Amino acid sequence: MNFAITILGSGSAVPTSRRNPTGQYIECNGRIILIDCGEGTQMQLRKLGMKFQKIQYILISHLHGDHYFGLVGLLSTMHLLGRTQEIKVFGPVGLKQIIEVQLEAAGSRLSFDVNVTELEKGSFGELMSDEKISIHYFPLRHKIPTSGFKILQKQKERKLLVEKAKRDGVKIAHYHRLKKGEDVVDDEGRTFLFEDYTIPSAPPSSYAFCSDTAYSEDVVEYIKEVDLLYHEATFTEEMLDRAKITKHSTAKHAGQIAKMANVKRLIMGHLSARYDNGKQHVMEAKPYFENCSYVEDGDVYQL
Amino acid sequence: MNFAITILGSGSAVPTSRRNPTGQYIECNGRIILIDCGEGTQMQLRKLGMKFQKIQYILISHLHGDHYFGLVGLLSTMHLLGRTQEIKVFGPVGLKQIIEVQLEAAGSRLSFDVNVTELEKGSFGELMSDEKISIHYFPLRHKIPTSGFKILQKQKERKLLVEKAKRDGVKIAHYHRLKKGEDVVDDEGRTFLFEDYTIPSAPPSSYAFCSDTAYSEDVVEYIKEVDLLYHEATFTEEMLDRAKITKHSTAKHAGQIAKMANVKRLIMGHLSARYDNGKQHVMEAKPYFENCSYVEDGDVYQL
Repeated sequence: MNFAITILGSGSAVPTSRRNPTGQYIECNGRIILIDCGEGTQMQLRKLGMKFQKIQYILISHLHGDHYFGLVGLLSTMHLLGRTQEIKVFGPVGLKQIIEVQLEAAGSRLSFDVNVTELEKGSFGELMSDEKISIHYFPLRHKIPTSGFKILQKQKERKLLVEKAKRDGVKIAHYHRLKKGEDVVDDEGRTFLFEDYTIPSAPPSSYAFCSDTAYSEDVVEYIKEVDLLYHEATFTEEMLDRAKITKHSTAKHAGQIAKMANVKRLIMGHLSARYDNGKQHVMEAKPYFENCSYVEDGDVYQL
Repeated sequence: MNFAITILGSGSAVPTSRRNPTGQYIECNGRIILIDCGEGTQMQLRKLGMKFQKIQYILISHLHGDHYFGLVGLLSTMHLLGRTQEIKVFGPVGLKQIIEVQLEAAGSRLSFDVNVTELEKGSFGELMSDEKISIHYFPLRHKIPTSGFKILQKQKERKLLVEKAKRDGVKIAHYHRLKKGEDVVDDEGRTFLFEDYTIPSAPPSSYAFCSDTAYSEDVVEYIKEVDLLYHEATFTEEMLDRAKITKHSTAKHAGQIAKMANVKRLIMGHLSARYDNGKQHVMEAKPYFENCSYVEDGDVYQL
């Protein structure tokens, strides 16, 4: 699995017996990221068999409880199970105090470092970048400061045509440079063109996460042409008034944003507890954006 | 159900797929009390069909996360579902700040009052008393300040022998005094002895909760002769060293305390995630106290 998004929770503020609050476990080129961590996320990680000690980054979109009440419990469990590897947490201003107050009350000193970076209200930028992936954040329009996130897979090395390289006597020591797109001259003066011995790897994929947010075209520039867009659709259009008051989106909004951003696929979540499923959401979004569906807890999306 | 204790979570610090962290829903003479509120308690309340808007008192034993990480989520859900009735919360010093920091971050003003009383370290006393029940607290010996709790049912009114009273012409207006144990003289000068027209109601019951705690005989005086004692038994005796370091009890300890306190029945919980079940705990406690068992999530104990 090069790039997989597992939905841990697809519900909204009030958890139901079927939908946990928001949490997504993302594996991308070997990097492991958790987006949001609602109450019960650690139980969901366990139930779905995710390797939660491997999580390297936790991104918290905002400080409504259904997006982070499971965070300190997860960190505590990581500690109790002997974690030593540092974890990087990104979230809104205020998150650090919330974590510290609770750890202090418990008299706990964790066995690993929790490196919290607080994101200024309305800001955007790159959270990290290495040879495998980069993570970006951008503002959403909600009742309190809220960020959306985008994860970009880096272009992988070109694929070596091993048999051909062997047959023509390319030295193993030169494989690496060819895969990086460099031509090679060996000791005997023979030239090997990278284009003869490699083919391009699959194009990199991208994922964007937008929850919670009122309808806002400002977001389009940040999520343009991603392969997969998760956009909240707490309501359907009959509840438009409620969506406006609570600064949430309807399924129509999600479809419109997906269309404007020209993404490849839209998945909708954060469904209000009043909906048994998201069929109505899909019917509503389809006229605006055809390739859409709604998520359930436990769903896995592979890119 | 006059007095019923429902186990919402029977596990310890690390929740498992089978055992949620600590939470108990108690109904006693129409009063509803929640003891502890580990992560996922609101989901458990929903799953088990408990009327969580009826909870009047929440008692938090201590500030280790497995005993309270579900609290602010539960309060938020009560708010979102329209609660207006005040709730009284009792817990250690520090609890108020933890609640406030999180509500403030969410920009929430709850639709009901949360009346938090912080209990001083090492203190004991009565938390409330009305005509139906009283609730008491006392210190346990743990790594951080921790309280145990005791709930006492009040003696109910005597039971009226209605048919006999009717036959002898006792006025309905006098029933109440007879049930309260008073003799009555009517307008015609006839005397009715309460002992002739009523029988005593069932004796009141009592429940004590001790989690988390190292072995400590100091607790005995507070829980003497209760009908049902819940005592933690995180470990069995092979793990005695670990129990001492972490200030927890073994099943033997629980049995010894139950014996010393001369309680009627012992139930053990807060089992470490390393145990599949509590059979070993029961074998270990039985030589000290015969009437013992271990709890599972969803168990209901009626007194």
